[in-house]
This record gives sequence, structure tokens and C-alpha cells, in this order.
Amino acid sequence: MLNNDSIVALATASGAGAIAVIRISGQDAISIANSVFKSIKEKDLTKQKTHTLHLGHIVDGAKTLDQVLVSIFKGPNSYTGENTVEISCHGSTYIQQQIIQLLLRNGCRMADAGEFTLRAFLNGKLDLSQAEAVADLIASDNEASHQIAMQQMRGGFSNEIAKLREELLNFASLIELELDFAEEDVEFADRSQFNELLNRIEFVLKRLIDSFAVGNVIKNGIPVAIVGEPNVGKSTLLNALLNEERAIVSDIAGTTRDTIEDELVIGGIGFRFIDTAGIRETQDYVESIGIKKTFEKIEQAQVVLYLVDSYELSVVSLEALKIEIEKVKNQFPLKPLLIVINKMDLLSEEKIKLIETQLTTHNAQLQFISAKNKVGIDELKNKLLSFVNTGALRNNETIVTNTRHYDSLLKALEEIQKVKYGLETNLSSDLMALDIKEALYQFGMITGQVTNDELLGNIFANFCIGK
Amino acid sequence: MLNNDSIVALATASGAGAIAVIRISGQDAISIANSVFKSIKEKDLTKQKTHTLHLGHIVDGAKTLDQVLVSIFKGPNSYTGENTVEISCHGSTYIQQQIIQLLLRNGCRMADAGEFTLRAFLNGKLDLSQAEAVADLIASDNEASHQIAMQQMRGGFSNEIAKLREELLNFASLIELELDFAEEDVEFADRSQFNELLNRIEFVLKRLIDSFAVGNVIKNGIPVAIVGEPNVGKSTLLNALLNEERAIVSDIAGTTRDTIEDELVIGGIGFRFIDTAGIRETQDYVESIGIKKTFEKIEQAQVVLYLVDSYELSVVSLEALKIEIEKVKNQFPLKPLLIVINKMDLLSEEKIKLIETQLTTHNAQLQFISAKNKVGIDELKNKLLSFVNTGALRNNETIVTNTRHYDSLLKALEEIQKVKYGLETNLSSDLMALDIKEALYQFGMITGQVTNDELLGNIFANFCIGK
Repeated sequence: MLNNDSIVALATASGAGAIAVIRISGQDAISIANSVFKSIKEKDLTKQKTHTLHLGHIVDGAKTLDQVLVSIFKGPNSYTGENTVEISCHGSTYIQQQIIQLLLRNGCRMADAGEFTLRAFLNGKLDLSQAEAVADLIASDNEASHQIAMQQMRGGFSNEIAKLREELLNFASLIELELDFAEEDVEFADRSQFNELLNRIEFVLKRLIDSFAVGNVIKNGIPVAIVGEPNVGKSTLLNALLNEERAIVSDIAGTTRDTIEDELVIGGIGFRFIDTAGIRETQDYVESIGIKKTFEKIEQAQVVLYLVDSYELSVVSLEALKIEIEKVKNQFPLKPLLIVINKMDLLSEEKIKLIETQLTTHNAQLQFISAKNKVGIDELKNKLLSFVNTGALRNNETIVTNTRHYDSLLKALEEIQKVKYGLETNLSSDLMALDIKEALYQFGMITGQVTNDELLGNIFANFCIGK
Repeated sequence: MLNNDSIVALATASGAGAIAVIRISGQDAISIANSVFKSIKEKDLTKQKTHTLHLGHIVDGAKTLDQVLVSIFKGPNSYTGENTVEISCHGSTYIQQQIIQLLLRNGCRMADAGEFTLRAFLNGKLDLSQAEAVADLIASDNEASHQIAMQQMRGGFSNEIAKLREELLNFASLIELELDFAEEDVEFADRSQFNELLNRIEFVLKRLIDSFAVGNVIKNGIPVAIVGEPNVGKSTLLNALLNEERAIVSDIAGTTRDTIEDELVIGGIGFRFIDTAGIRETQDYVESIGIKKTFEKIEQAQVVLYLVDSYELSVVSLEALKIEIEKVKNQFPLKPLLIVINKMDLLSEEKIKLIETQLTTHNAQLQFISAKNKVGIDELKNKLLSFVNTGALRNNETIVTNTRHYDSLLKALEEIQKVKYGLETNLSSDLMALDIKEALYQFGMITGQVTNDELLGNIFANFCIGK
């Protein structure tokens, strides 16, 4: 699978910027770059030290394409582990294209998606879970997902898995040894120590598997269903939540942020707000379909935010509201429910106290806000964050976010539990050895010690070109 | 105007890519970068050589933001002439923002548009016309505009202007000297040599001023009005012209091109096709307004492409077509006219010959094509290119594309002609000296030897941030 041919791709975001970076990797990367580069000081790039920068022009015969800075990295001291050159050129798409075309004519080929990182993996610069973290890191758009990707890229997750794998491998070889001396009925592997190890592995696997629930929502955002009638101020609420975050971003010209109105980052965690039509009971057939849809959306959400306009409370009685809330609670007894009363500035203090007494008995959190005056917004954010189990995040524990890892962990757990059962029931060493091997295989799948071309193809196809 | 404070900006295109580059420039650039950088080998960035690359992490206290490569450039050996650091980080917008925010907290400020290049100019790394060429280069989207910007950036234009300015300055000082000895009525400046120089300057200025017509269309694209009835196949024609160019671009994944359907690059030159409604005479009031609009659009165009469907030629007589074409020729006698007959595959050879005889006498170029079968398209492209005066481009002559330069050149020419007239009419040295000074001033405006804050503000405000 490992090719030595030289690959090229644009490494920076597509489109025009002040500069763009074109990356070449492969055995001949430096000599290919040298063949189209004319240094100001007539330097020969192939004779330069690693990790040095050189000013010059990219030339196509007599034609000068651009003035550029060339970075040289000699393998194995590069990202891919191969000779690597980065050409920092002016950022017009025309120039990017011209230089890439020139390099293609001079012995490079276009890199496939993720091929630079694939080579880094194949050359032992990264293990597989670290390589996957690179893609997560590039895709990270909030603090939590960034932190998890960063920890995974630095090897936190791999180290934990690799340590367990090594210990298990030790026992496996002892058990294999027993097989060689099968007729003599000896036990090289201390069964009680082995049992202790299996328990430890089981404990870690369960913790990692549990972390996936957190990891998954952090990676994809926490779905929050907003239940409320059409005109209770949902968009005002979202804007109020959004505005503070935006202020930080708009300070930095040149960095843009794709704004999807109902995806917000609060306290470093991504939230996805799902609008629903509300659940008010009517005689109308069409509206009753609306209620069914609302319930379907709540089903998908992890948190329910029940938004009420204070004006409603003078129109509809508090009792009617309590009945509606009760319905949601009955339907979804385990989903955290947050009742938010908007336009609190229109309520008298007595009324606020009355609502508090009436609704807090109902096993749900309550928050008064004024989206317009920005009152209660911080408290609302804190309440939303309280629904997310960020403990693992705060303690820098390993969090699993990758479905492929999750699958392998589940399978490894299954095998470990088989081994445990075998140990309890005095299963023969040869059968136990098979289960241990399977568990080792699953561990190896995560870090890439066990791999195959199809798996690698699937993983790296999801990368962007140039990484 | 020259500040030493450290400025920071994203230098690569905004949005997510595999990597992004953040640029810092200023006295403290390296020490600021060092304060947030933790090298793998515990390196101190401030003690590293210029033009070296260093692997490490950007850290915010205990938190690691990213693994990065840091490039170090020590002033004056950098783009800006100041200490400069480029941080090559992972390309997520979240990471870009976090690192820029961290740098802002650690003593940098956001760079203004074009401030890096402004500093390069103020530090004498580039003259003003070279600095302006940087923006043109980044904006260049075809070969011709790229070539002109490249030549200007490499100083071709400036050198030509600077040489004339120096010679003129020599004479100016001799004339000034005459003023000091005014009572003695001596002539230090040889009048015939001076006259010869003025003629030479006048010749160069006129050539540069003339080149602006070419430069301007190359920079903005050559406007071509397509005259033809609504259903003669205008979009098929444009697609046929476009397709071949597209094939090159689509080979390179990761480099995108903004496609505006009616802007095409042919042979490295940009063409802008302007659709018109045709000029067929009718009794209809609304249509006669259409004809007026068509003439207005032809007015703005540099070339007229008269498109006829071969089917039309069997419906409308050839005589009627000749009358229509005659109208265009009468209205715009100096505009190049190209008559294109589409669907030539539907015409008999006799008919083709007949049309050729009838229409080529009419002082217009004629091209038969079949847009569907891609016949005659290359010939059409060559005919379009023949209308563009690319001689100057081919001969690598200086071409003026910048309106500001054009204005200064016009003013300089006016002053030079005044001096010439003064010389002919034996104007006194002191009055002649004033005109020479004004010409020198205009030359200096181009290269930036004469400048002011407002001018610089205007020029660099048009740059992108990060350059």
C-alpha cells in the first residue's frame, strides 16, 4: 500500500486569500520542487537543511509564475515521514492552479483525500486513532470537540488502549505457553492476577463505552427541542443566546464563522435547537398532526426547552399550562425539562412567585428571562450546561467520539466478558486463547496495529484533500 | 506613520482547510510567539536562526490549542522587513480564532487591510507600484492579468519610471544651478541634450499611457456584445467556448474557480460577454426599445459578435441580414465586428459559399461554427484574440493597468510638454524649473518616492486582511 511517488495538493482553504500553501510529499518532493524553483541566491534546494525556508520564484521555463517561500522538511522529520515541501505562494486561485499544474507536469500526482495523513500513519508517525483525530480537529468548531480531538491526537486514547493491550498480550503469551505444555497440565498464568486484569480491562472498557454518549453529543451538538407556540419568541431567544458568542467572533476580521441560526456554542459545547410547533390541544385536525410531529421531535432531542410567553400566562390559565407540561413529562419521563418564561418584565413580582410555586413542584427546572432586556440569559445557559455531563471533559478523561472506536470497544468488551466467563467455568486454555486473541484484535483495530486496506480506505476517504 | 507594534492576521483564505497560516509582524513578533509556543525540544524561539521552522504546540496556560509549525523570519529579511512569524496550524476556523485571540491577549493587535504590505513599503522592501501589484497578483484570475501584475511586482514598471525620473532630476539640478548663477547668464544644462531627453520621456510616457487601454481591458476583461435574436443559441455558444477551459480546471480537486457563466478566459485573456436582444426591425414599440438598448450595450463593448442561426438564413433573406449588419457598421464604424453563423452543419456547401461571398465584402470577419459539434470553435477563439492587442504582452513590454498610475502619467506628460514648450520659447529657467518639479512629483507619486498618508490609506484599504 505504501507508495513513494510524490503527491501534491493545496493544503489551505480553497478560494482566494493573501497566501496559499501547496504541499508536496514523497521521495522526490524536494528535487521536484527544486526543478521549478529559482532561488534569489541561486540555492539548490536538495542541498539545504531540513526545517529551513527559502525565498525565490516558481518558474515554468522562461515564465515566472510567482514569488514564493519554500519550506523544506527531510524525512523522517516531517508530517508524513517523507521528504516534504510546502510552497507558500500568493493566494489567487489562478496562481494556485498554475503551480499545481506545473508540479503535476514535473512528476507529482494529485493527492487523494487524506493521503498525507495516511502516509504519516503508514510511516509510523501517528497511530490510527491519532490520524482520525486530525480530521476531527480540522472539523472541530467548539471548545469541547476541539479538546477531545486534541487529546486523541496527542495519543491519550491510544496510550490507554495500548497499555491494556500490552498487559493482555502478556497473559495471552503465558496462556499460549500452557498450550505448548498441555500434557503436563501446568499453569503459567496466575489465574487470580488474570482475573484482576480482566476486571480492570472491563472497567476501563465500560467507562470508555459510556463516554461515547457524551462524546457523540459533543461531536454532533446536543439536540434541544424548543416547545412553544409559534409567537412566543423562539428566534428572539436564540438571538439573545447567540449575540454574546458573536461579539467575540466579529472582533476578528478575516476569520469567518458559518452561522446556522439554530446551532449555538454555549460554554464550549455545541447545542442544536430544534424548533417544534408546540403541543396545544385543539379540535383542528391539522393541528393535531402538529402535536404528533412535536412529540417525534422531542423524541430525538436530549433536552426539552418549554418556552412560554408571559403574556400567555394571562390569557391561558396557569392550570392549562400545567396540564400541557404534564403531558410532556408523562410522555418523556426521563428527558430533562426546562421551562423558560419569556418577557418576565411584563410580570408582577406576585405573579412570578405564584408561577414559581405552581411549576417548580412539577419536577422540572424553571427559568424566567427577558430576551429583549437580556435578563436571565446567563442563568439559562448555565441550566442548559447542567444537563450535559461535562465531568469527564473537565477531568481530562478520555472520551470516545468515533463510531468505529465505539464498535471495536463494544466487541472487545464482549470478548473480555467471554474470557472472564471462561475463567470462572474453567474453560480450556486453547478456547480461552481464541477469545483473548479476538479482544486483542479489536484493541489493535483502534490503534491501527491491526488493519486492512479497505478499513484505511474508508477512514481516509473522509478527510479533506491536502491533509 | 510607521509603527513597531506587532500585528496579527489570518493570511490564508478564510474557512476550513487542512491547514491555515496566521501571520505576525513587528518588533516583538518572535517573543510574542515564543510566549505561547512550547516546542517539542524546549526551544526558545527568540534564539533561533532566521528562515527556520519549528514544530511544537500553541499553549494557553495549561490548555494546548494546537500542534503547529512556526516559521521565523528576522527583520530585515522578511516580507515586511520586520521580525515576522508564521504559524501554520490545523485549518478549523475554531482553532484559527482561538490562536488569533490568544495572540491578541498577548500583545498583538489585529492588522488592518494591507498593513503587512504597507509595512513592507514603509520599510523599503517594495516601492509603491510593486506593493500595488501584490494586490493585483492576488486578484489575478487569468494569464494576462497575472503576467502584468507579476512584471509590475518584479519592478519592471518602477524601473522604467525611476530611470526617467533620475535623468530628469539631473537636468533639474543643472537648471537649479543656473538659477544660483542667474546674474551671470550661464547655461549648465545643454539645451539640445535636454530637448532630446524630453522627447524620449514624452515617447515613453505616451507609450505607457497608450498601454492603459490594453491594460485596463486585460485587468477587467474584454467586453464583447453578442447581438442576435433570443433563440440563435447564445448560451450554447458560451458553453462551447467554456467547456474546454473547464476541463483543465476540474482536473485539480481542491482548487475551485468561481464560474460566472458569461466571463471566459480565452488564450489567457478574460472576455466578458454581454447579452443583447438583437436589432431586428419591427413595428412593435416594445421591441424598438429593445433595439435602442442593444445599441447602448454595443457602445460599451469593445468587440461586436453578431450571432446568426443558419436556420434564420433560410427564413430571413440574406439581403435582410446584410441590411441589419450594415446598420451596426454604420452606427459603430470603428468597432471590430465578427459575424458568427451557428449550426453550419445544416447548411449546404453552396449556401456556405454564397454566404461567404455576400458577407465578407462587408468589412467584417466571418466564422462558421457548429456549437453542438464543436466545429469552428478554435477558429472563433483565435479571431476573438486577434482583436486584442497582445503585442505588448508578448514582447514583455510594460503595461499600465492602474488608474492611479494612468492619472499620474497623464499629468507628467502634460508637465513635460509644458517644459518642452518652455524650452522652445526660451522660457526663463526659474519658470521651467517649476514645471520640471511638477513632472518629477508625478513620477514620484507612482513609485512612492512622493507620498502622503491619505494616498497610502486609499491604496492599502483595498487590500485583503493578512497581506
